[in-house]
Amino acid sequence: MNPAAPHESTDPGTLSYEQAGVNYDLIDPLKISAQRAAASTATQLAGHGFTEVAASRGESAYVVDVGPFYIASIVECLGTKTLVADEMATLTGRSYYDGIAQDTIAMAVNDLITVGATPLVVQAYWAAGGSDWFGDNARAQALVAGWKKACEVCNVAWGGGETPALAGIVEAGRIDLAASCTGLINPKERLSVGDQLGAGDAIVLLESSGIHANGLSLARKLVERLPQGYLTEVRPGLSYGEALLAPTVLYSPVTEALWKAGIAPRYCANITGHGWRKLLRHPAELTYRIHTVPPVTPVLAFMQQHARQDDREAYSTLNMGAGFAIFVQAEDAERTVEIARAQGIAAWNAGVVEAGPKRLLIEPLGIEFGNDDLQLR
Amino acid sequence: MNPAAPHESTDPGTLSYEQAGVNYDLIDPLKISAQRAAASTATQLAGHGFTEVAASRGESAYVVDVGPFYIASIVECLGTKTLVADEMATLTGRSYYDGIAQDTIAMAVNDLITVGATPLVVQAYWAAGGSDWFGDNARAQALVAGWKKACEVCNVAWGGGETPALAGIVEAGRIDLAASCTGLINPKERLSVGDQLGAGDAIVLLESSGIHANGLSLARKLVERLPQGYLTEVRPGLSYGEALLAPTVLYSPVTEALWKAGIAPRYCANITGHGWRKLLRHPAELTYRIHTVPPVTPVLAFMQQHARQDDREAYSTLNMGAGFAIFVQAEDAERTVEIARAQGIAAWNAGVVEAGPKRLLIEPLGIEFGNDDLQLR
Repeated sequence: MNPAAPHESTDPGTLSYEQAGVNYDLIDPLKISAQRAAASTATQLAGHGFTEVAASRGESAYVVDVGPFYIASIVECLGTKTLVADEMATLTGRSYYDGIAQDTIAMAVNDLITVGATPLVVQAYWAAGGSDWFGDNARAQALVAGWKKACEVCNVAWGGGETPALAGIVEAGRIDLAASCTGLINPKERLSVGDQLGAGDAIVLLESSGIHANGLSLARKLVERLPQGYLTEVRPGLSYGEALLAPTVLYSPVTEALWKAGIAPRYCANITGHGWRKLLRHPAELTYRIHTVPPVTPVLAFMQQHARQDDREAYSTLNMGAGFAIFVQAEDAERTVEIARAQGIAAWNAGVVEAGPKRLLIEPLGIEFGNDDLQLR
Repeated sequence: MNPAAPHESTDPGTLSYEQAGVNYDLIDPLKISAQRAAASTATQLAGHGFTEVAASRGESAYVVDVGPFYIASIVECLGTKTLVADEMATLTGRSYYDGIAQDTIAMAVNDLITVGATPLVVQAYWAAGGSDWFGDNARAQALVAGWKKACEVCNVAWGGGETPALAGIVEAGRIDLAASCTGLINPKERLSVGDQLGAGDAIVLLESSGIHANGLSLARKLVERLPQGYLTEVRPGLSYGEALLAPTVLYSPVTEALWKAGIAPRYCANITGHGWRKLLRHPAELTYRIHTVPPVTPVLAFMQQHARQDDREAYSTLNMGAGFAIFVQAEDAERTVEIARAQGIAAWNAGVVEAGPKRLLIEPLGIEFGNDDLQLR
C-alpha cells in the first residue's frame, strides 16, 4: 500500500469521508456507552469536596470546580497526519515533524480553550512503532523543537510525557502522537459553556492554515487520483503534500488576548472533524446564520475539486478556511475580529445567532445543516 | 509471527530485557533533549502568575504551584500488555479488557500519587487500528466497564477522552491505550518530592499483583520457550497468560488513607520499568538498605526461572512482588503497613534509608545497585 503512488484514475466519482475509511457507525455505540459510564463517575468528586461543571460533559474539555477556580483537562490525538509527513519526507528528504508537533499541541490546546480555559501544562505522548523511530535524529529533534516552540506560542509549560516503543501495536516506522493539556478557568467568570449564548450574538470565524489535522484520511485517499501524488501542485510552487502539512493554527493567543481586552466569548467551537457542522455543537435550540464565508484555503479547494464534493459535503467534513468559531455579543464582534488580526490570525464577523430551530444556514452557499447532521453527544 | 506458538527450545540462554526488543540506547538521547526543551518552557508559567515545582522535573508527575494548591498532571501509556490480552482472548474466548482498563488507569494514577497528589480527573486515550476494533462489542464494553470501575476505586471522575481509529499507524486489530490524569496536592504540605527524605527513614513496600504493565516485552518473548505457550501453567489451574493479565494494583486508596491518618510520605516510587532500580529514583546521595524482601509473585518467579535470569537481572527489570515504595519517617512505618493492609494491599516494612553513597542494597539477596544502574534524568 503506497498512498503516494500516482496512477491514472478512471472516472473517479465523489469521494466521501466514509469512503476514505472512517466508519463512525462502529465507533459511535462505544462512544455513547463510554460517555454514559464517564458521566456516572462525576459523583466521585464529591468525596474531595468538588463538583464537575455538568455542562462541560459533551463539550471539548472537561471542567471541574475546585473552589477558587475551575480546572479543565483533555487528551487529544493527532490522527494520521504523520502518514503524510512520512511520505513527504521520503519524497523530499525533509522532516516535517516540527509542524507535526505544533499540530498535535493544537489538537489539545484549541479544544481546551473552547471552555474559557487558559492552557497551563502540556504533556507529550509519543508512542513509536519501535525504538528505532527515535534513532532518526533529525526527525526526533524536529519533533522536540516544534513541540517546544508551540508551547512557547501558547505560553504553556511542557511538563513531560511518554516516549514508549510499542512494536506490535504501533506500526513499524510510525508514531502515534497525542497531547494532554491541563488549564485553569480563572477567574471563574471566564467559563464559556454556552449557557449565555442567545439570539443576537455574533459568530466570528478565525482562519485556518489548511486542513489542520482533520480530514486526513480523505486527503490521503485522494492522492491516488492525483497525477503526481503528493507532489501535484496546488498552486505553482506549492505541492499538495506541503500544503497539507501547514501546521494547525494555535488559537489560544486569541482567546487570551480577548480576555485581556475584556471580551468574554459566549461560546467557542473548534472546527475539526465534521467540519462546519461543529458550529451546531451547542445543545441549545438556535439558528446560526452565516452571511460571510471566509475564503477557502487553496488546499481545501483543491481537495474539494478532486474529491468531486459539492459544497454541502465539503463544508460538512473540512474546515474550508475557518478553523475556530467564537460566539460573542454583537457589540464585541468587530473588536474580536481586530484582536484576532492583531495576533496575526485573519478573522471575519461571519454570522449571527437567531431564535429558531437548531440549524446552520450558510447563506452565500445555499447550504443548510440541521440537528440530525451532528450527533456528538 | 505468533508469539504464542509453542515450540521446543534448544538450549535457551538468559533472556534479558534488551534482547526482548526494547533498546533504551536509541530512546534515551531523545528523552534527554526533550527533557531539556521541556524544562526551558517552565518560564511560560510566570506570565500566568504561576511557577513550576522544579523538583518535580524528573519525577513521575509534573507539578505547578497555582497559589492555593499545587496541580499535578501526567499522561501514561499502557504499553504492550494488550498483545497478551488479545492472544489470550483467542485462546480462551474471554475478553480481558476490563483488567486492561485498570492497568491503563494504574499507569497514570500510580505515577501521579508519587508527588502527593490526589487524582481527580482521568481522560481516556483509546487509539484503535481501525473502526472495526470498536465493532467487537463484548471487548469494547469490557474496556468501558473496567475503566469506570477503576475510576471508582481511585475516586476520580472520568472526564472524557479520545477514541480515534488510526489505520496505518496503529496495527489492524490492535489498540494503543493511555490515560492522562490531573490531580491536586491539597493542602500544599502534601507535596512529596523527596526534599525531606533522609537517613533513618523507613522503606515500606506494597505488594504487586504480578507483572503489572512493565516487562511485557520480555514476558511475550518468553512464550516461545514455554511448552504450551500462554497456556503453560504457573501453578495448577493458573495459566501463564492469565497470571500475566492480573490487573495492576491501584495504590491511590493507600496514599489517600495515609493522608487521612496523618502520615505524609517523605517520598514515593512507583516500581515500573527498571524494576527495583526505581528505588534509586530520588537524586539525593543516600543508601537504601532492604532487609526484608516480599514474597515473589508466582508469575514473576516463573518468568525469572524460564528467562534464566539471576536475581540481579530479575530485580533490575521486574517488580518481583513489590509494586510501589513509600518512604516514611521510621515511627510511621508500622502504621503505614497497617493502613495499606486495611485497604486490602499487603505491605512490608522492608528497609531503611541511610547516609552513604547512592546505592540500593537488597541484603537478603546479596544484590547491590549503584547510581550508574539507573539514569532516568
